[in-house]
Amino acid sequence: MTETTAHERFYSVIPAGGIGSRLWPLSRADAPKFLHDLTGSGQTLLRDTWERLAPIAGDQRIMVVTGRAHRAAVEAQLPALTDENIVLESEPRDSSAAIGLAAAILERREPGVIIGSFAADHVIGQREGFRAAVRQAIAAADAGYITTIGIRPTEPAVGFGYIHTGGSLDVPGAEGALAVTEFVEKPDLDTAKAYVEGGDHLWNAGMFIARADRLLEELHRSQPELHDGLVELAAAWDDPVTRGPAVDRIWPTLTKIAIDYSVAEPAADAGRLAVIPGTFDWDDVGDFASLAKLNTAGRASDLAILGEHARVLADASSGIVVSRSKRVISLIGVQDIVVVDTPDALLVTTSEHAQRVKSVVDALRMGGSGDVL
Amino acid sequence: MTETTAHERFYSVIPAGGIGSRLWPLSRADAPKFLHDLTGSGQTLLRDTWERLAPIAGDQRIMVVTGRAHRAAVEAQLPALTDENIVLESEPRDSSAAIGLAAAILERREPGVIIGSFAADHVIGQREGFRAAVRQAIAAADAGYITTIGIRPTEPAVGFGYIHTGGSLDVPGAEGALAVTEFVEKPDLDTAKAYVEGGDHLWNAGMFIARADRLLEELHRSQPELHDGLVELAAAWDDPVTRGPAVDRIWPTLTKIAIDYSVAEPAADAGRLAVIPGTFDWDDVGDFASLAKLNTAGRASDLAILGEHARVLADASSGIVVSRSKRVISLIGVQDIVVVDTPDALLVTTSEHAQRVKSVVDALRMGGSGDVL
Repeated sequence: MTETTAHERFYSVIPAGGIGSRLWPLSRADAPKFLHDLTGSGQTLLRDTWERLAPIAGDQRIMVVTGRAHRAAVEAQLPALTDENIVLESEPRDSSAAIGLAAAILERREPGVIIGSFAADHVIGQREGFRAAVRQAIAAADAGYITTIGIRPTEPAVGFGYIHTGGSLDVPGAEGALAVTEFVEKPDLDTAKAYVEGGDHLWNAGMFIARADRLLEELHRSQPELHDGLVELAAAWDDPVTRGPAVDRIWPTLTKIAIDYSVAEPAADAGRLAVIPGTFDWDDVGDFASLAKLNTAGRASDLAILGEHARVLADASSGIVVSRSKRVISLIGVQDIVVVDTPDALLVTTSEHAQRVKSVVDALRMGGSGDVL
Repeated sequence: MTETTAHERFYSVIPAGGIGSRLWPLSRADAPKFLHDLTGSGQTLLRDTWERLAPIAGDQRIMVVTGRAHRAAVEAQLPALTDENIVLESEPRDSSAAIGLAAAILERREPGVIIGSFAADHVIGQREGFRAAVRQAIAAADAGYITTIGIRPTEPAVGFGYIHTGGSLDVPGAEGALAVTEFVEKPDLDTAKAYVEGGDHLWNAGMFIARADRLLEELHRSQPELHDGLVELAAAWDDPVTRGPAVDRIWPTLTKIAIDYSVAEPAADAGRLAVIPGTFDWDDVGDFASLAKLNTAGRASDLAILGEHARVLADASSGIVVSRSKRVISLIGVQDIVVVDTPDALLVTTSEHAQRVKSVVDALRMGGSGDVL
C-alpha cells in the first residue's frame, strides 16, 4: 500500500477521560482538565486537540471516547462531532479499554483502519511539526509497527516517562522511525540528566498510532479477556438494540490497565514498537509547576495569571495564579507560588510541591470533602 | 483627694476608629478590625475591650467614639452602651479629635473627671494585671500627670513604638510610676534589641489616662485651634438642637493628628508625662505576622486557623489561615504563609511581608478596586 492510501485509512481517537487530579481545584470530576483553557489561548485543550487533528484526516474521522457525564460539554466544544464518533463510557476503565474499544469499533466499520490516539489534555506548540511526525507514524503503523511519537527532551524532566530508542528502522515514508528498546517510568533527576545527555531517550507523550487490528492483536496477547470483552462490545456497538445491554454487561468487567502496559511495553519487548522522534513543543501539563512554566515561557521570576476575570495585584511575587472567580487576589512577596482560586476551593502551594496536589485530593476524598472534588 | 475618690471620677473612653489596613482583606471600611474576633475567643475585640473596662468603673462609665457607619454594629456588640456614651464621628479625624472630644464632653458633664483611653482593637491577656496598672495610672493622673501604661517588652519588636523611661515618680497609689523622657517611633531591629537589653524602654500601647482638664490643657498648648474647636463642639454636644449644626460646622475643620504627637510627646518633653509599667500580655495585632504569632502561641512551625466555618487541609505548612468563607482551603508545603480568604478578596503573603499589606490596600484604592476595601 502507498503512504497516501495509509493516510486515507487514518482515524484519530481522542480519549478524553482523566480528571487531572494534580490540577485540582481547577480540574474537577465535573470539569476535567481537557475542558479548561490552560494556555490562555481562549479555547479548551480538547478543542485545541481537535483542531490539531482535524487537518490530518478531516473532522469526520475523529472519534472521542469520554465519560457519559461529559457528553454535553464535549459536544458543545466539538460541534462537528457526530453521534457515530462519540463513545461514551459509563465509568472510567483506564486507557486500554477506552482506546481498545475505539480500535475494535473502527476495525469492524473499516477493516484495515489505522488509528492514532492522542490525549485530549496535552499542549502542543507547532502543529506542522506535529503533523509531520504523525505522517511518518502512519507509515510505520501501516508497515505493522505499534508506533509512538516521542519528544526530544529539552530538559531533564522528572514528571514524564521516557522511551529508550534503539536503531533506525527502514520504513518507507517514516525516515525518522527508530526501534524502541524500553519504556521507562518517571526517573529521578540524575537519571533524567543522563537520559538527556545520552541522546537516546525521548519523552513518552502517550501518542499511539497503529493499525487497529495490530493493536487488538497486542491486546489479545497481553490481556486476552480484556480483548475479548472489547471485541464483543464492539460487535454490539452499532446496533441501538444491542449496544445498551452489552455495555451494561461487559463494561464493568473490563480490566483497568494503561495502554502503556497492555500494548506498548509488550510490543517494545518483542521488537514490534517503533517511535518517531518529534521535535515540536509538547507538554502534558501534569501539574501546576508545568502550568506555571508553560505560561511564563519558563521565566522563573514571572507571575503567570490564568483566568478570564482575574483581578490580581502582585508585589514581588512569582509563580502562577489561576482565577476562576471575580475576587481580587493579592500576592505579596511570595516566590514560585501556586494559587488556584475557585468558588468552592482554594489551593496555595509552590511549584516544588505541585506533584503532591494529588495526595491532597485523596485526603479530601477520604475526609468527606468530596463535594469539592 | 484619696485614691478611692479618683477612682470614682474615672471614665473609660474607647476610640473605635481605625480600619486596620494591615489586616486587609479581613479588616474593611465596613468591617474594621475592632469588629473581628482575632483570638478565637468567640467575641470581637471591641467586646473584649468593653469587658476588660467594665469592672473598673462600671458599664455606665464607658464612652465609645466611633464612625457613624459603625453605630449599629457597635451597639449590637455593646448592649449596655447608652446614647450619652456613644460619640459618632461624621468622618475620621485621628485620635486627638476623638479622644479630645470625649475629654471635653466629659469634663463639661463632670468637672474633674479622669479619663482613660484604650484602643478598641488591642488584645490583652491578663485582665487583673491590666486593672492593677490602670489603678496606678488613675492615681498618677489624679496627681496631675498625663499617664500612659507601657508594656515591658518580651522581645525586640519592630512593629511598636517605645517609651524611654526615666526615674521613679513619687506618687501615692502609683508606686510603679516612672517619668518618661521620650516617645520613640518604631525602631529597627538592632535598636529594638538594645532597648530590650537596656531595660529602660517599654512598648507604647497607646493607653492614656489623665484628668480631662489636664489633657485639654496639653492640647491647648500644642494645638490651640483643635482644642478650641473641641471645646466649642462639646459645649453644643448635649443639646439636640445645637449638636448637629456644631458637628457640621466644626468637625470637618479639626486638625488630624495622633494624640501621641499632640499630647504625649509635648508632655514628655515638659516632664508632665508618667508611665506605669504593665506586665500583662498585650498586642496591638498590627499585622498578620502578629496575628499568626498570637494564635500559635509563638510556635513558628504551627499553622493557626481563624474562622468559624474554616475548612482547611494543610500539609507541611505553617503560618496563618483566616477564613471568612466556607471554601475548602488547601495548603501544601508553604511556610510562614498568610492566607486570608474572604468572599470578594484573597490575600496570600508571608509573615515577613505582613507590614506591606497596607501598601497593597493603597494600590487597590488608587487602581480603582475600592470596592474590596
